[in-house]
Amino acid sequence: MDQVWSSYKETLDEVEEQIRKDLDSEVDLINKVARYILNSGGKRIRPLLLIISSQLCDYKEKSHIALGGVIEFIHTATLLHDDVIDNAEVRRGIPPARALWGNQASILIGDYLYTLAVCQAVKMDNFEINYLLSTTCRRMSEGETLQLAHNGDFDLTEAIYLQIIEYKTASLLAASCRLGGIIGNVPEEKKEALARFGRNLGIAFQVADDTLDYVADRRRLGKSLGKDLREGKITLPLLHLLQNSPKKEKARLKKIVSGDKFLQKDLAYVISLMEERGSIRYALERAQEYANRAKKDLSVFNDSLHRQSLYTVADYVVRRDH
Amino acid sequence: MDQVWSSYKETLDEVEEQIRKDLDSEVDLINKVARYILNSGGKRIRPLLLIISSQLCDYKEKSHIALGGVIEFIHTATLLHDDVIDNAEVRRGIPPARALWGNQASILIGDYLYTLAVCQAVKMDNFEINYLLSTTCRRMSEGETLQLAHNGDFDLTEAIYLQIIEYKTASLLAASCRLGGIIGNVPEEKKEALARFGRNLGIAFQVADDTLDYVADRRRLGKSLGKDLREGKITLPLLHLLQNSPKKEKARLKKIVSGDKFLQKDLAYVISLMEERGSIRYALERAQEYANRAKKDLSVFNDSLHRQSLYTVADYVVRRDH
Repeated sequence: MDQVWSSYKETLDEVEEQIRKDLDSEVDLINKVARYILNSGGKRIRPLLLIISSQLCDYKEKSHIALGGVIEFIHTATLLHDDVIDNAEVRRGIPPARALWGNQASILIGDYLYTLAVCQAVKMDNFEINYLLSTTCRRMSEGETLQLAHNGDFDLTEAIYLQIIEYKTASLLAASCRLGGIIGNVPEEKKEALARFGRNLGIAFQVADDTLDYVADRRRLGKSLGKDLREGKITLPLLHLLQNSPKKEKARLKKIVSGDKFLQKDLAYVISLMEERGSIRYALERAQEYANRAKKDLSVFNDSLHRQSLYTVADYVVRRDH
Repeated sequence: MDQVWSSYKETLDEVEEQIRKDLDSEVDLINKVARYILNSGGKRIRPLLLIISSQLCDYKEKSHIALGGVIEFIHTATLLHDDVIDNAEVRRGIPPARALWGNQASILIGDYLYTLAVCQAVKMDNFEINYLLSTTCRRMSEGETLQLAHNGDFDLTEAIYLQIIEYKTASLLAASCRLGGIIGNVPEEKKEALARFGRNLGIAFQVADDTLDYVADRRRLGKSLGKDLREGKITLPLLHLLQNSPKKEKARLKKIVSGDKFLQKDLAYVISLMEERGSIRYALERAQEYANRAKKDLSVFNDSLHRQSLYTVADYVVRRDH
């Protein structure tokens, strides 16, 4: 994966420069908070996917630079709001904006970044791009709301779980890839293939992320272990565990998830059960399945360095911690 | 003003129908919360301004219906977020969405309504409209952030106060009016006049609103008296009072605004001082001044029933409680 990052570094640097240039509100607080979160170590995986996809489609002009900034502004806006929703105390190993400037500033500057993204997209004056981006953002907020509506819901099915992560996460990755096809002006079939690739990769990404919440080394992923459990978010490994637990155990698990007090020993109990029942393995296998589907989606493209790069990204999102 | 509402009632009803039709997310919680706030007694002053402006420009088609919905979705999105920011306990005499469904739902469904507005606007495929709406929304979030940055700031000047209310409130009213000119396809000079009218009317509207916070009958305006004072928001009547108070009194006022505990007798003290120093009268006069400027802005249009209607709206926003 390091090789992929370095292959596209020059273009990614241009996106970085674009982001820096676009962040020039006359309101100082906006620039300060937005710069803080935009420079807090995010990997720019969405601009990367957009860049590779556009090159896969032989795109030679410069729209991917501005679009990379737009996609990253949208993503950052959602992070600011998510951290308020989740009462987050850490993001990527450092305090989130809300811990430094408060929830109010996080909400408003999230709003600002989204409106900035819309401004920059509108300026491109391309209906297909604006239609895709606007419907994607609507989908994302539907996904976030659906997740909230199912918080602590023990009747959550795997189908609804998948719908939530497809909407809240995968839709923006799908859009990033499809945008490469749109600016590359390829036939609809190829745009559709890129969108499917991004969607499947996005699901793999989120399933892996949700699973790593029960196994990852706190330092390396920069977030606290068992965060979802603490927030009552039911994700794939817990779903698997609930479906594979006898009645009595299930009752104890429900008590832990819905309880006000969260104890380290409860988390240790849940993790040990997950290991015993193969829930972690099951979830990581599902993630790998989606990554494999993503790779298959690219079969309409000839083999090339860019297609290889997308394969690498697909495998990387599943194995981030290894 | 009643006559104005009834003159445009048929078109306003079409906007209402459009709003109802557009609110059809597959996520039930979104529809429920969005319907609650959209049906909580808002007056649709922005769609009204858009409708009258378009008729003033002899517009004969149907775009103002969809646009009226877009403008109202944007406005409603800001209400949902504002209520979270302000920790509001009442809106228009009833509990705000955050009191019934929580801050998290209010934030996310505010996001949804904004993305829905962008979707509906993009569908119209008109660059001028989308450019205006996107820059307006960016301005609005800058205004909200500027207000937050100056919360409890005793060095706030009248110039910055005016900038805040122009950005957060007047810009959307200005856009509503300009949109009438855009779809009516009038020369730039007339669009500019409509935008100026909306901006001045918007400033008058917000100054009056801020002043009524110190005089209005709680029942009639559906919000609690002294709300701004409680939140540390420094508005025009308080600005005037601070500038016209001897040092010792100023110190006491500052203590009240920055204090954690807010007492009814403090509010009574502030209001009685405002009456003594003419702060309420000063602020209402300023509001009327802006309403008068708004009316002058329409001099490029011939006299007509529609121009008369806009005059009526301009006077109405200043005198809402009488």
